[in-house]
Amino acid sequence: MSPPQALPTASSLTDAGIAHAATNSNTTTMKNGSSNGNGASPLAGLDASKIAVTLTSNPRSVPEPNSPEVFAQKTCTDHMITASWDAERGWHTPELKPYGPFSLMPTASCLHYATECFEGMKLYRGWDGRLRLFRPDRNTNRLLTSAQRIALPAFEPSEVAKLIAKLCAVDGPKWLPKGREGQFLYVRPTMIADDEALGVNMPRRAMLFVILCFFPNLDVSVPGAVEIKKPGLKLLASRDDMVRAWPGGFGYAKLGANYGPSLIAQGEARSMGYDQVLWLLGKECDVTEAGASNFFVVWRTKEGQLQLVTAPLDERIILDGVTRRSVLELARTRLISGWAGAGVPEDEQLEPVEVVERKFNMGELLEAVDEGRLIEAFAAGTAFFIAPISLIHFRSRDIEIPLAAGDSGKYAKTIKTWLKNIMYGKESHEWGVVIQEETIAPQ
Amino acid sequence: MSPPQALPTASSLTDAGIAHAATNSNTTTMKNGSSNGNGASPLAGLDASKIAVTLTSNPRSVPEPNSPEVFAQKTCTDHMITASWDAERGWHTPELKPYGPFSLMPTASCLHYATECFEGMKLYRGWDGRLRLFRPDRNTNRLLTSAQRIALPAFEPSEVAKLIAKLCAVDGPKWLPKGREGQFLYVRPTMIADDEALGVNMPRRAMLFVILCFFPNLDVSVPGAVEIKKPGLKLLASRDDMVRAWPGGFGYAKLGANYGPSLIAQGEARSMGYDQVLWLLGKECDVTEAGASNFFVVWRTKEGQLQLVTAPLDERIILDGVTRRSVLELARTRLISGWAGAGVPEDEQLEPVEVVERKFNMGELLEAVDEGRLIEAFAAGTAFFIAPISLIHFRSRDIEIPLAAGDSGKYAKTIKTWLKNIMYGKESHEWGVVIQEETIAPQ
Repeated sequence: MSPPQALPTASSLTDAGIAHAATNSNTTTMKNGSSNGNGASPLAGLDASKIAVTLTSNPRSVPEPNSPEVFAQKTCTDHMITASWDAERGWHTPELKPYGPFSLMPTASCLHYATECFEGMKLYRGWDGRLRLFRPDRNTNRLLTSAQRIALPAFEPSEVAKLIAKLCAVDGPKWLPKGREGQFLYVRPTMIADDEALGVNMPRRAMLFVILCFFPNLDVSVPGAVEIKKPGLKLLASRDDMVRAWPGGFGYAKLGANYGPSLIAQGEARSMGYDQVLWLLGKECDVTEAGASNFFVVWRTKEGQLQLVTAPLDERIILDGVTRRSVLELARTRLISGWAGAGVPEDEQLEPVEVVERKFNMGELLEAVDEGRLIEAFAAGTAFFIAPISLIHFRSRDIEIPLAAGDSGKYAKTIKTWLKNIMYGKESHEWGVVIQEETIAPQ
Repeated sequence: MSPPQALPTASSLTDAGIAHAATNSNTTTMKNGSSNGNGASPLAGLDASKIAVTLTSNPRSVPEPNSPEVFAQKTCTDHMITASWDAERGWHTPELKPYGPFSLMPTASCLHYATECFEGMKLYRGWDGRLRLFRPDRNTNRLLTSAQRIALPAFEPSEVAKLIAKLCAVDGPKWLPKGREGQFLYVRPTMIADDEALGVNMPRRAMLFVILCFFPNLDVSVPGAVEIKKPGLKLLASRDDMVRAWPGGFGYAKLGANYGPSLIAQGEARSMGYDQVLWLLGKECDVTEAGASNFFVVWRTKEGQLQLVTAPLDERIILDGVTRRSVLELARTRLISGWAGAGVPEDEQLEPVEVVERKFNMGELLEAVDEGRLIEAFAAGTAFFIAPISLIHFRSRDIEIPLAAGDSGKYAKTIKTWLKNIMYGKESHEWGVVIQEETIAPQ
């Protein structure tokens, strides 16, 4: 077997692959079915409208907010959504069905080769009594990006968004009922390859599933619940021999392969009293992410310019966080000329900031601290939301980070409030997508 | 919560973690049980002697060698071995039981965070009629290394070796019977975290399992079977935006997280007519691995010295392959003064080589080709064994690699023969570990 004569140049290979995958995810192609490349019948696209619904006959009880059961993070709602795919037929009919275990052969690809990716979202019970998702289109688009990086099948992202909304509509009313305003359920869309062939090959079978899980809410105080300590985060800077992601790797995608390998460093950090790892990269110790969140600083440049700074996306090292993006977009629209909104007390008014996405390193951060120019730092992500940082341990040095607003920096506090107002419906905004709740028959 | 006052220096953190894990894997500690750190009852070590055996009541039939069923790589033998672990009790009783699916909750850690690692081995039916494993201690030691990198529990490697031997002893006689001399079954020890808590945390539950699977044997010709094309491998050099492993990453460990992310590049290579990806790293295009195998060249230096060269282990980029190590060890003992063993025809005799583990790059390889100094290249790994390479496509250039012995280079051919002689019992050697077969009652 000789390679074909007219080969694309090496530099076009991956671009070609991505273009190919993107074509497969095209709305029209997918909904109408695309070819499997053998000239055979077209592959079926993912179609949320065909969903088959089987409600549970064994409904379970809803845990109290921040109860030990919630802290265990094992409790999901009554139902889940699954959709199977195979390389011969494409996507099968999606199902909403009782939550329960999967049956996987010991040879399943996802158990050996980490052929898996996921998303993290939240379903919010707003102060106006309505259920909302926050920018679900960003998550479903990113799920497609992740799936393509890990050789899982393409789909039309809006069809996944419809499936997520369906599960929220069915289980939201019971599991995040009215009366729980200001609280949330965690939404976990996941894709795995469940091929049974043990060879290291592109998956020919896969499954999408969506579950709703209880996570602790570190923002609410619930009488009688597990007590929440809520200091600023304390971060331990990573060492040279524990690198999370690298150029040409897959740090930008939400792959399982980015998470498991970080657990040893995270476990060491926690055993030493830190909350998370601050992931550095390269000889200059570029600052990339904090735990599984994006990392922001507010500092004043030597020239006196106030800046909100976070690492850039262009090298594809860091995750394109939905919270990260939202922080940047809000700061660019609301902080550009400062913040002194109606009724904002004088001491909560904010000086304008320049919003900067650029590579920065620990040397710059240390210099800013030593010269009194570091204003605050915070982590931003779905799971831990906006989390102020109070300390970074780097090469035997404890770097104290100011918390000007008591338990937070002022910028983190204000941005967090803006985001919560959108998520919980205090502010009407296109990012807050209302879920029409379904009443299901008593079971 | 403040971090403790007397912190270890950052540089000792991971070393400390590894030392801790190594302590947990200490034979005496594990077999007698180690503490779970809470002053509670000791954790149980993995103990193969306690195995609980449940034989299948539904025995299946054995496929023909290299039949389509074998090429599908989905067929396993009648039984498997499983052993569960949890953070409260340690290792539970290992079980040998009928092969079948696992039941995993949708929240299982291994489905989200790639908390999984594996090994690849073969069980050989020797020409003397006996079953052998090849250096199983190297695989079980490496499984421990991988488990520690991905936050899975420690164990005494020799206990895993005993479990593997047990499964081979029970299923080997039927599934790799006498009469199939020169053939093998593929052995897949695997560890996964099956925690049901969705938080990104160190696993508190895990499972070890071992299965025996049919793989095609590209070295035997079976009348009537699927025809095997057996050219030299054609490799496509990787691009800058598809990097397999990185300093400080986990390329040295056999984690799922190294395999899934390579599938897109592999799929592109195959769709263009290549067999595997040649993984390069960095600006100098250091040569690291070929597919999931180690990569070797034989070249003559500018000074005229013949060398067998492969990438070094010290940066922890490449896998410490059992075949790689065996090639190096055989070459160092048998090729140092050339090879002209008894009865070796003159044209198969080999000039002495210097054996070198060092970083080398595509520039050096191209220069050697252009100056006529490249003698041969081959990949070495368990799955594809010793595979001669005939072509590398790098930056729009097809680099032809000599195959001096027809379908192989002469060094690869000789080393392969030596290894086969050990694996299949033509040569008695400590690396070939004989399995005492068990006769199980008719089912």
